[in-house]
Amino acid sequence: MGQSVTAFAPATVANVSCGFDILGFAIDRLGDKVSVSFNQEGILRVTGIEGDEGKLPLEPEKNTCSVAIQAMLNKLGSKQGIDIFLEKGLPLGSGMGSSAASAAAALEAANVLLGNPFTKEELVPFAMESERIACGSAHADNVAPSILGGFVLIRDYDPLDMVKLPVPEGIFCTLVHPHIELKTSDSRSVLRKQISLKESVMQSGNIAGFIAALYKSDLALLSRSLKDVIAEPSRALLIPGFYELRDAIKSIGSLGSGISGSGPTIFVLSPNGDIAHEAGEKAKEVFQKIGLGVDVYVSEVNKRGAFIVSR
Amino acid sequence: MGQSVTAFAPATVANVSCGFDILGFAIDRLGDKVSVSFNQEGILRVTGIEGDEGKLPLEPEKNTCSVAIQAMLNKLGSKQGIDIFLEKGLPLGSGMGSSAASAAAALEAANVLLGNPFTKEELVPFAMESERIACGSAHADNVAPSILGGFVLIRDYDPLDMVKLPVPEGIFCTLVHPHIELKTSDSRSVLRKQISLKESVMQSGNIAGFIAALYKSDLALLSRSLKDVIAEPSRALLIPGFYELRDAIKSIGSLGSGISGSGPTIFVLSPNGDIAHEAGEKAKEVFQKIGLGVDVYVSEVNKRGAFIVSR
Repeated sequence: MGQSVTAFAPATVANVSCGFDILGFAIDRLGDKVSVSFNQEGILRVTGIEGDEGKLPLEPEKNTCSVAIQAMLNKLGSKQGIDIFLEKGLPLGSGMGSSAASAAAALEAANVLLGNPFTKEELVPFAMESERIACGSAHADNVAPSILGGFVLIRDYDPLDMVKLPVPEGIFCTLVHPHIELKTSDSRSVLRKQISLKESVMQSGNIAGFIAALYKSDLALLSRSLKDVIAEPSRALLIPGFYELRDAIKSIGSLGSGISGSGPTIFVLSPNGDIAHEAGEKAKEVFQKIGLGVDVYVSEVNKRGAFIVSR
Repeated sequence: MGQSVTAFAPATVANVSCGFDILGFAIDRLGDKVSVSFNQEGILRVTGIEGDEGKLPLEPEKNTCSVAIQAMLNKLGSKQGIDIFLEKGLPLGSGMGSSAASAAAALEAANVLLGNPFTKEELVPFAMESERIACGSAHADNVAPSILGGFVLIRDYDPLDMVKLPVPEGIFCTLVHPHIELKTSDSRSVLRKQISLKESVMQSGNIAGFIAALYKSDLALLSRSLKDVIAEPSRALLIPGFYELRDAIKSIGSLGSGISGSGPTIFVLSPNGDIAHEAGEKAKEVFQKIGLGVDVYVSEVNKRGAFIVSR
């Protein structure tokens, strides 16, 4: 075994309210670590996983890390053997982009191991292949911010068109993860297939306002724009405490809240760390009242995405 | 009769493709002029209209200029008598914001006549009252850019939430007005009331990309984002030559096209004046082939909105 490279990739929030299906952003500190090294056997393999309570597959064709790196090797036409070791820092199936963080960290590490053949942007399609395995669709709204950092718009998939957006100074996120299980398939099945023209226009207006707010650093506009009339009305019903928390954080000066990914995690955006922590306390109160355990993470919005920890 | 104040307000493009119902922008030079002066009779009246071929009403409760100024006077609690004279520079019912330009010019002039009691932003709700009379709904996506200039996002109406957006340097518009009559009511009736979730997500992605493109001055992104999957597929069928023109202007480097307002005017955005003029020539060719007369206007995107011509 030769040189080892270790990368970290952050948790992400996708389906950012009015940015349903097109917008994601990255969190600081919370995330997954992946170490990669060459092996002499000429095979791609997952040598171990920590922190997943034995739930994640080691088979290279099912593991998000190896699927992502395989896509990269295919692009290079390489049959290089690589060992992969994954340290999960993220809870599975929480709506925090757990599978995306693993793939992003794996790609960041493997890219360095292989001598940086790709830009960060070029890594995104490889990570999308692993999302296809993990989630059933090759979506980019978690993997792109996990790799690139900040807010990332996925304008289109055919071809992939990403726009990295500015992050207003001081903006913090509180992630609230209630201890309930919510299957992505259930969260998907409640979505309406048809929506009214009026709702679509409202959603357009809000995402347009949100994007302008990021460029203007206009947090009042950002707050007014943080509304999802498409997915949230259906999905929030699957998350007890969602509306109680939304109301509770309004009174303390938070900018707004929404469902992270397909839930059950709820994200709250705040203009600074103090309010973000206070939002976390409000969340604990709300979920204690309804008798549900909850994990709370407070973090700045991450601007740098995946990065190398050691090599 | 005392002091007279004359203002000009520009033509505008509303329903800017992916910005259906939420985005408008202003044109240079082409527009309406309104002169106002105090009268001693204590009544609000339209003393004359030029350039409308006798089609516009003089009755104060039906004329867009007087309706707008009446809304302003009501807000002030004033019973001041004002004479209004309108010079139409815009064709009626063309989809170029003709009624909006009249109201905007009237308000700009009256505001100065009355000693500037209102900011430009505060004039918009008065102009919306005249749109209610002229178009049946108090929409702001023509009046706001006609008053404020540039690209204006109408994020919401309850309450009115407008965002003035940056105008990329050098961007030009070609307005193509085919000589067909298209009633707003017909143009409205073809709109679908329900759309698919997928279409709504596409529209959101495109308007988000368009807004980002304005802030980044990224004309390639602007061009990729200039797609309307909501209204255009239905409305374009009512405008002969629409798709032929769209294809013709792509080959010369224009950024894209769309239906202005509810049509029949088509707008083409171009990265500079030369290409905008060439787009105009292409338009003449296209409409000559299908045997339709056409008026073509080429203009920069206007950044200043309504302004005082003389006082």
